[in-house]
Amino acid sequence: MPAEDRAARVRALLESVRAAGRTALTAPEGRVIAEAYGIAVPDEELAADVDQAVAAAARIGGPVVLKIVSPDILHKTEAGGVVVGVEGAAEVRAAFHRIVANARAYDAGARVTGVQVQELLPAGREVIVGAVTDPAFGKVVAFGLGGVLVEVLRDVTFRLAPVSADEALSMLGSVRSAEVLRGVRGQAGVDRRAVAELIRRVSELVADFPEIGEVDLNPVIATDRGAVAADIRVILAERPQPARRTYTREEILASMRRLMQPRAVAVIGASQEPGKIGNSVMRNLLDGGFAGEIHPVNPRAGDILGRKAYPSIADVPGEVDVAVFAVPARSVAAALEEAGRKGVPNAVLIPSGFAETGEHALQAEIVAIAERHGVRLLGPNIYGYYSTWQDLCATFCTPYDVKGPVALTSQSGGIGMAILGFARTTRTGVSAIVGLGNKADLDEDDLLTWFGEDPHTQCVAMHLEDLKDGRAFVAAARATVPKKPVVVLKAGRTAAGARAAGSHTGALAGDDAVYDDILRQAGVIRAPGLNDMLEYARALPVLPTPRGDNVVIITGAGGSGVLLSDAVTDNGLSLMEIPPDLDEAFRRFIPPFGAAGNPVDITGGEPPSTYEATIRLGLADPRVHALVLGYWHTVVTPPAAFAELTARVVAEFRERGVAKPVVASLAGDVEVEEACRYLFERGVVAYPYTTEMPVAVLGAKYRWARAAGLLGGGP
Amino acid sequence: MPAEDRAARVRALLESVRAAGRTALTAPEGRVIAEAYGIAVPDEELAADVDQAVAAAARIGGPVVLKIVSPDILHKTEAGGVVVGVEGAAEVRAAFHRIVANARAYDAGARVTGVQVQELLPAGREVIVGAVTDPAFGKVVAFGLGGVLVEVLRDVTFRLAPVSADEALSMLGSVRSAEVLRGVRGQAGVDRRAVAELIRRVSELVADFPEIGEVDLNPVIATDRGAVAADIRVILAERPQPARRTYTREEILASMRRLMQPRAVAVIGASQEPGKIGNSVMRNLLDGGFAGEIHPVNPRAGDILGRKAYPSIADVPGEVDVAVFAVPARSVAAALEEAGRKGVPNAVLIPSGFAETGEHALQAEIVAIAERHGVRLLGPNIYGYYSTWQDLCATFCTPYDVKGPVALTSQSGGIGMAILGFARTTRTGVSAIVGLGNKADLDEDDLLTWFGEDPHTQCVAMHLEDLKDGRAFVAAARATVPKKPVVVLKAGRTAAGARAAGSHTGALAGDDAVYDDILRQAGVIRAPGLNDMLEYARALPVLPTPRGDNVVIITGAGGSGVLLSDAVTDNGLSLMEIPPDLDEAFRRFIPPFGAAGNPVDITGGEPPSTYEATIRLGLADPRVHALVLGYWHTVVTPPAAFAELTARVVAEFRERGVAKPVVASLAGDVEVEEACRYLFERGVVAYPYTTEMPVAVLGAKYRWARAAGLLGGGP
Repeated sequence: MPAEDRAARVRALLESVRAAGRTALTAPEGRVIAEAYGIAVPDEELAADVDQAVAAAARIGGPVVLKIVSPDILHKTEAGGVVVGVEGAAEVRAAFHRIVANARAYDAGARVTGVQVQELLPAGREVIVGAVTDPAFGKVVAFGLGGVLVEVLRDVTFRLAPVSADEALSMLGSVRSAEVLRGVRGQAGVDRRAVAELIRRVSELVADFPEIGEVDLNPVIATDRGAVAADIRVILAERPQPARRTYTREEILASMRRLMQPRAVAVIGASQEPGKIGNSVMRNLLDGGFAGEIHPVNPRAGDILGRKAYPSIADVPGEVDVAVFAVPARSVAAALEEAGRKGVPNAVLIPSGFAETGEHALQAEIVAIAERHGVRLLGPNIYGYYSTWQDLCATFCTPYDVKGPVALTSQSGGIGMAILGFARTTRTGVSAIVGLGNKADLDEDDLLTWFGEDPHTQCVAMHLEDLKDGRAFVAAARATVPKKPVVVLKAGRTAAGARAAGSHTGALAGDDAVYDDILRQAGVIRAPGLNDMLEYARALPVLPTPRGDNVVIITGAGGSGVLLSDAVTDNGLSLMEIPPDLDEAFRRFIPPFGAAGNPVDITGGEPPSTYEATIRLGLADPRVHALVLGYWHTVVTPPAAFAELTARVVAEFRERGVAKPVVASLAGDVEVEEACRYLFERGVVAYPYTTEMPVAVLGAKYRWARAAGLLGGGP
Repeated sequence: MPAEDRAARVRALLESVRAAGRTALTAPEGRVIAEAYGIAVPDEELAADVDQAVAAAARIGGPVVLKIVSPDILHKTEAGGVVVGVEGAAEVRAAFHRIVANARAYDAGARVTGVQVQELLPAGREVIVGAVTDPAFGKVVAFGLGGVLVEVLRDVTFRLAPVSADEALSMLGSVRSAEVLRGVRGQAGVDRRAVAELIRRVSELVADFPEIGEVDLNPVIATDRGAVAADIRVILAERPQPARRTYTREEILASMRRLMQPRAVAVIGASQEPGKIGNSVMRNLLDGGFAGEIHPVNPRAGDILGRKAYPSIADVPGEVDVAVFAVPARSVAAALEEAGRKGVPNAVLIPSGFAETGEHALQAEIVAIAERHGVRLLGPNIYGYYSTWQDLCATFCTPYDVKGPVALTSQSGGIGMAILGFARTTRTGVSAIVGLGNKADLDEDDLLTWFGEDPHTQCVAMHLEDLKDGRAFVAAARATVPKKPVVVLKAGRTAAGARAAGSHTGALAGDDAVYDDILRQAGVIRAPGLNDMLEYARALPVLPTPRGDNVVIITGAGGSGVLLSDAVTDNGLSLMEIPPDLDEAFRRFIPPFGAAGNPVDITGGEPPSTYEATIRLGLADPRVHALVLGYWHTVVTPPAAFAELTARVVAEFRERGVAKPVVASLAGDVEVEEACRYLFERGVVAYPYTTEMPVAVLGAKYRWARAAGLLGGGP
């Protein structure tokens, strides 16, 4: 039917349901919606008497199911009120009389409305298609295999609704039991297009009607010739929250530019008194070397740390890009009002004492002030932020000055401190570290929008507990991922973790399965833990992007080769099948008992020249796309020698324009630690005492390269 | 039937199959075995004519299946030769005629032997029961859920055969889809005892008859009233390898004691010449401070590094406990023969050039010499070994002198070097580091037998690529685990890894699923990677054993609390439901907006006294069994203050006899690294920049405590 008729029909139906004070649709109402959206359901008809039943069965054709319809009989099967697979007038007639008689015997007083005559669905694979309203992502469509096994094993996949036909089709391949749908043990596969089309239509339905909270087609019977929903369940949603003020991409970029590259910063609550946050922030701004204007604001002091102080931000001369608030929570509103009037675009709210301590009204008040004036808020309840390329340290923590390509953000202050310590000890090059705290306004999507454009930033790593607007985040991620990797540590993955998230931020942690699927679809690299996020952030910008899937392990320690191979498989990478000519070439350099193939095992007693020759081979051969090195500390090739030759050869090839990712696991005495530092600084990602981390990082780089469309194969 | 009759009957059958040159048993032969072992199979009978078919159906009772039997018809269903669910003389008669007619129509020349009349099995849950011969573990029984989903998802569990009734029953709970067997969606659960009994009988069968290589009952139809094998498949094994010489536990302990606590060590191939292995070994023995006798053996030199040298080990005066071989592979046999004649119980074979380079005959030769003389071989192809409490460094690597409770072994020299470097940088207390290399003789089970008894060793960590005798290892592990944790890093887990294992040691890497289940059953803690093994080894002896399941997180950083909660769930631990009185007690110390419950979030701005008061509460309350601390670096509580107070309080409680495991994650600037070292040395397992590792280590301790029977609940 035409789209407008369809919409009108469904809207009228939903309004009548709402008017009746119901949230769940009845089965006939569900059928109306199914028909409007072209969702196949079994043909059926209510027969008031036996002749109507015979006629209905004849019209439907083929075997049918008869079911008693009575408001007094809840358990039809128990009452003998269901007969399956009758065909032809005589059988239908007999069955009709039998179930009516059974119903009477079961409950003599039961009112019998009639008998439902329903098409008997063919045997097929049971699948589930549904849609839910996720607190972070809104309408989300779900697909999984039906039946108890998958209900037990929870094998289900999600996408943002609406989905395209291709996206819907991809869902059939995203479940663990995907092979089943292709047909196994001689059974035919399901009609993939029909199932995908059903998914697409359900996703369209919930996208068209936000007032629909949940749809459940369970089971859908999928055969090699179609897919029919045996049952459809539709539930209306709660009324949505009022929308917050939104900003365009251009507005976001404009205010974020002034936040991250300010010319003038005011510190509201700047203090002379050591130990006060307003003192630490001032000192860090000054010590950090920020070249712009720094204006202390304090009603009492005329001069703070050598800078003229102003009683109010209104008194500060000229434009101010950022106002850093280092005053108690109760003093924020008034000062924010003044900042808004002055046209300050960014307020960095360090103080705690808002939603995280139950002061929701106070937080709502400052959000309202900010929205009125168009001031963007960072925080509250944060450590502040670093913009290293501006020598800007607007925090009460210690400065950080290793400029580099990674932007790191955290929802939690503790995690922010871990970022700082890790970055310092590993000398990670950083473009920004930003605390998000309560996220009263600025959110991961705003930051990502900026970092996506920021030329200093080549990798973004974000710790988060929830997303206030999952769709905006997905949009920002999709815009960023083709340019640079986005790593996310999503805390509150597990039930226990989600509960702690609830008590920490008052945020409703989403179902992790939804986050996992949708972040992957957005091309985000999900870090399994804090340490992984930090290592990915440190290593990803160091590694060149691979140009293909062929990974080669070159190892001096056979034992490392085995563990590195395990890690390659664990990380979804492919050990290259070495072509005979390359195998022959490797063999020329390694002892006869060394193993060519892959891993290339050069054996432990070899001099630096063997490492060098084989690494050169791997870099020179265009069929090889990434190298994983396993070094074994020996007297013949000490760690420093290995580090020197590897760094030199890799640099030589990069100068020639051959840039392949090279990662290394160093097994040896403590000198390997210095060798790893040496290598890391020279673009080879190297770790001591672990065969897992170098390959995990390479795996993360590959996941990004795939998501960015640089390697074929989607996210 | 009586066991001896049963055995005779099966043995006769298997011999006749072998005599016929077959390895696969026919269906009727399978039935004979099933009947002998009381494995229920569908009742069936071959009917030569229609009257026999009617009689057979009447005897069997209930609905039956008829199947054409013809040597010329392979695809019975295609030929219309199968009818399912006929009952009563008339139906059986009609069906008989129909399928014979169909067969004739299908192939006019087909010879028809008759019609098989078979009991129709009831609808039920399909499961699979089987047994295979694993290269490492021998006869292994398998259980899983049948059907395509589980075939696709590979949800299966293994045990060493034979199993007890209880072990068999435990297998039903060990599959991921275990819930299905208990009954879901209103379906009845299966008869668990009947399924378990079937498993037990299959395991008994393969244990009784090692010549049976594989048994497959697929599918078994399990209902709420029994379990019947719809099909049984039996395949004979290859002839077994000839057995190697075995040693009793007492013999193993006697020779291992002399290896690990020797009074006299000879170095065969000792050398004056720096750079030679025979020189490094001599120097390490001397520099390491070994107090026993050290005898260089070298045909030329009269004096090596100040010790009198002997031309042959035969010339060394007195008893020698260990002969360390530092001569080329080709010279080993002759010297080993002399060592054997002298009665030296242990030969440590450093040289490579044996099986790992394809020299299998050379390795077989030295094994034969060793077996003849009862000399135990360590290696060949190893870095040697350390026995730190004896100040014994019999390696060509550098000495290691931090005496402590962990014994570490590795199959690979590279991994051995990683162990050494890691131990040195973390100052891990070590009782021994042993290289196993080719494992021509001494194996993990010998070492484990010794370390289980060694009072210096409180934890054993082993890197291995294969087990030559998985059953001996399981026996040694079962004897050791009740006393001390055994950590295993099994390399070659994945297909790619297993292939590399094959090329490295010539060992056939077993199916990882078998290793995984059987190591878990043996109570072994499996480390997922090299770094995990090293961290578990370092941390497990530091942690006291928990007395119960209640884990409490106390955190200054809410963000760490969420991540620590995730880690608690990931590691199978339980966040305690805090009782109201304890909750009240915690609340007294934390700000009103801090979250009690679990995690206990004391919030970030608190002084050391709040950490101290809450940690004291957790240690003092007997309902709390383990603490996970999340520290957030602030000016108010700097890292050193947190470390000092935590170590002091923990020590105070331990002095009072209250020893609970306490682990900590420190989020902060680089000073947290020193704080972690301080804590670790004082019995608190602490890590910087990771919320995962402290909880992973606690999880490993819990897994051990459960396996050791110290916590209720088996492995």
